[in-house]
Amino acid sequence: MKFDIMRDRLLDGLNDVMKAVSSKTTIPILTGIKIDVSTNGMTLTGSDADITIQTSIPVEEDGEQLIHVTEPGSIVLQAKMFNEIVRKLPTNDVEIEVTDQFQTRIRSGKSDFHLIGLDAAEYPMLPEISPDRQITLPADLLKSVIRETVFAVSTSESRPVLTGVKWQIKEDGLVCVATDSHRLARRKVTLEHLPTEEANVVIPGKSLTELSKILSDSTTPVDIFMTNQQVLFKTSDVIFFSRLLEGNYPDTTRLIPEEYNTNVTINGKSLLQAIDRASLLAREDRNNVVRFSTLADNNIEISSNSPEIGKVEEEIQVVSLEGEELRISFSAKYMMDALKAIDGQEVVIQFTGAMRPFIIRSVHDDAILQLILPVRTY
Amino acid sequence: MKFDIMRDRLLDGLNDVMKAVSSKTTIPILTGIKIDVSTNGMTLTGSDADITIQTSIPVEEDGEQLIHVTEPGSIVLQAKMFNEIVRKLPTNDVEIEVTDQFQTRIRSGKSDFHLIGLDAAEYPMLPEISPDRQITLPADLLKSVIRETVFAVSTSESRPVLTGVKWQIKEDGLVCVATDSHRLARRKVTLEHLPTEEANVVIPGKSLTELSKILSDSTTPVDIFMTNQQVLFKTSDVIFFSRLLEGNYPDTTRLIPEEYNTNVTINGKSLLQAIDRASLLAREDRNNVVRFSTLADNNIEISSNSPEIGKVEEEIQVVSLEGEELRISFSAKYMMDALKAIDGQEVVIQFTGAMRPFIIRSVHDDAILQLILPVRTY
Repeated sequence: MKFDIMRDRLLDGLNDVMKAVSSKTTIPILTGIKIDVSTNGMTLTGSDADITIQTSIPVEEDGEQLIHVTEPGSIVLQAKMFNEIVRKLPTNDVEIEVTDQFQTRIRSGKSDFHLIGLDAAEYPMLPEISPDRQITLPADLLKSVIRETVFAVSTSESRPVLTGVKWQIKEDGLVCVATDSHRLARRKVTLEHLPTEEANVVIPGKSLTELSKILSDSTTPVDIFMTNQQVLFKTSDVIFFSRLLEGNYPDTTRLIPEEYNTNVTINGKSLLQAIDRASLLAREDRNNVVRFSTLADNNIEISSNSPEIGKVEEEIQVVSLEGEELRISFSAKYMMDALKAIDGQEVVIQFTGAMRPFIIRSVHDDAILQLILPVRTY
Repeated sequence: MKFDIMRDRLLDGLNDVMKAVSSKTTIPILTGIKIDVSTNGMTLTGSDADITIQTSIPVEEDGEQLIHVTEPGSIVLQAKMFNEIVRKLPTNDVEIEVTDQFQTRIRSGKSDFHLIGLDAAEYPMLPEISPDRQITLPADLLKSVIRETVFAVSTSESRPVLTGVKWQIKEDGLVCVATDSHRLARRKVTLEHLPTEEANVVIPGKSLTELSKILSDSTTPVDIFMTNQQVLFKTSDVIFFSRLLEGNYPDTTRLIPEEYNTNVTINGKSLLQAIDRASLLAREDRNNVVRFSTLADNNIEISSNSPEIGKVEEEIQVVSLEGEELRISFSAKYMMDALKAIDGQEVVIQFTGAMRPFIIRSVHDDAILQLILPVRTY
């Protein structure tokens, strides 16, 4: 293998695939990045066995020569070292040559590196995925869907399936649900083209978070393919694979109350900031619980009390307040997470009683639903 | 105590004094910030027993009312909590009132906090310092002096006095020296006004690093007062106290060679970058040693070799190369630290032999001298 490449483009590609490489892997070859060079261009692959990221750089783009291939081939180079070397090379021209026994020479300007590589034939193969259960979403919408749900996954490994987000495709579109059994986030997306088969998969929250980092904030389409073991997200230059979580995801539909006794419409930002302040004192007791009380004249009060530190009270004028009086306590963190996930100025909060789950949604849009279980404090 | 203050100014003041507050302190009252309010204005004090920072906010500045004092007084409030509360208050008007038994009420907009404070009378008194050993430096020069020396202090507590920078005032000005016994940094400063007494103190490196963070990059004068136990840095609105280190600082003058056998003048930035690249491989073996070799035709070579990872070689054309041929090995980190501390494009490196300390200085300026002990590798 021997080729010349523009350093900046190689760095961009490495930047993407490095997100999949973990120093904690127990599979030695996965500490490396696989480089495949053909007459069409270069492919870089990084993986931690759960996530695999592959990116391609063409030989030529918009009339500009990015790679000059002298001899095609493949090699695996130690990821962190290779990335740092490329980042620090003195010029934008990089020559990479594999000589005897996976010995790899990297030259740029007067710098001359020799790295000991690994056999690319030992690198795991990528799974093949059929297009039966394929959907397409714009990159920015996909990022929103992830942002609005992934925070609610469980961080505990006691029920592994809850560390993922359930993605279900049915005739009415895509429904994404995450819950850690104390709160739930649900996002519905209407699809223009439904796939030929229904799908029901649980994608690890960590995979979605990493995917989000490499997606652009544009409307560029992302093709999504699902199988029983893997999901694949494909953009024009990056392919992102993730394994799926096994196990039965709980039925969450019956968690959502059907009747509400207190309905509050409120400015989401004012509420978020008041809870943020109240949580300063709530946090000290480690349970991070704040109290929400309805008052007269369309006011509510957010309060918190920590016997050793002090207390805080704050009134907020709401847009509307209907139904029964209420005093309810809940996790400040869960409420802040939910409010941050909902776009739009005004939110509706619907309560069934001090001991029952309540929901938060935008006044304008039913696509996002956030549900929180209250905390018993008195 | 009762007063109103502009939140932004209170935050600026807290930002300075918070740098002295440590959550690791074993003295409970030092987890707090002392607030003193008089008819002249407000003083904030934070301390971790080693460093004390005090900042003042006047009642009025440039015709603008910053503080409205209803009743003077003092209180100590839990530093982290108070700082976070002030940061998150909803309006720029803050009312602080101490009522019964150090109970402190903080109000802004509709937010109403009650904090349990501590008795200000229990807060440690600040030492008094006489002006006999006072010097004055512009803030930006003081920052440079710190930056050019403090990195060379020892991080090991085996010889505590080496964790500080020695500041010596004699008839020829101020000399600052730091060494960890493997390398040494020395900075000389000519003083316009010498103090009436000579001084010889060792200032903890950590104190100088913290001081540097609150100094501006301007020529504003900083008054520096030294005693046997404390040093005090005074700007228009901040007073910074540090305890001094006890113990005899070693005589470092005889470390510096008097004769040199190889003199190299070289572009400092090119050398820094080449060593940075070579250190990528050197680092893997944990000793971080690179080799410097003189070549023919005004060239030198930087190289590094790690049997399991690979090797790197790089030639650099130097400005001049005089004296004996040389191959010498040294810590890449120490060399990079030294080169970063020296301003100016070209540096002179003077060697006495492969086993003797060598020095690095700017071609233009003798104020900064960096010395490094080589490493024996063959």
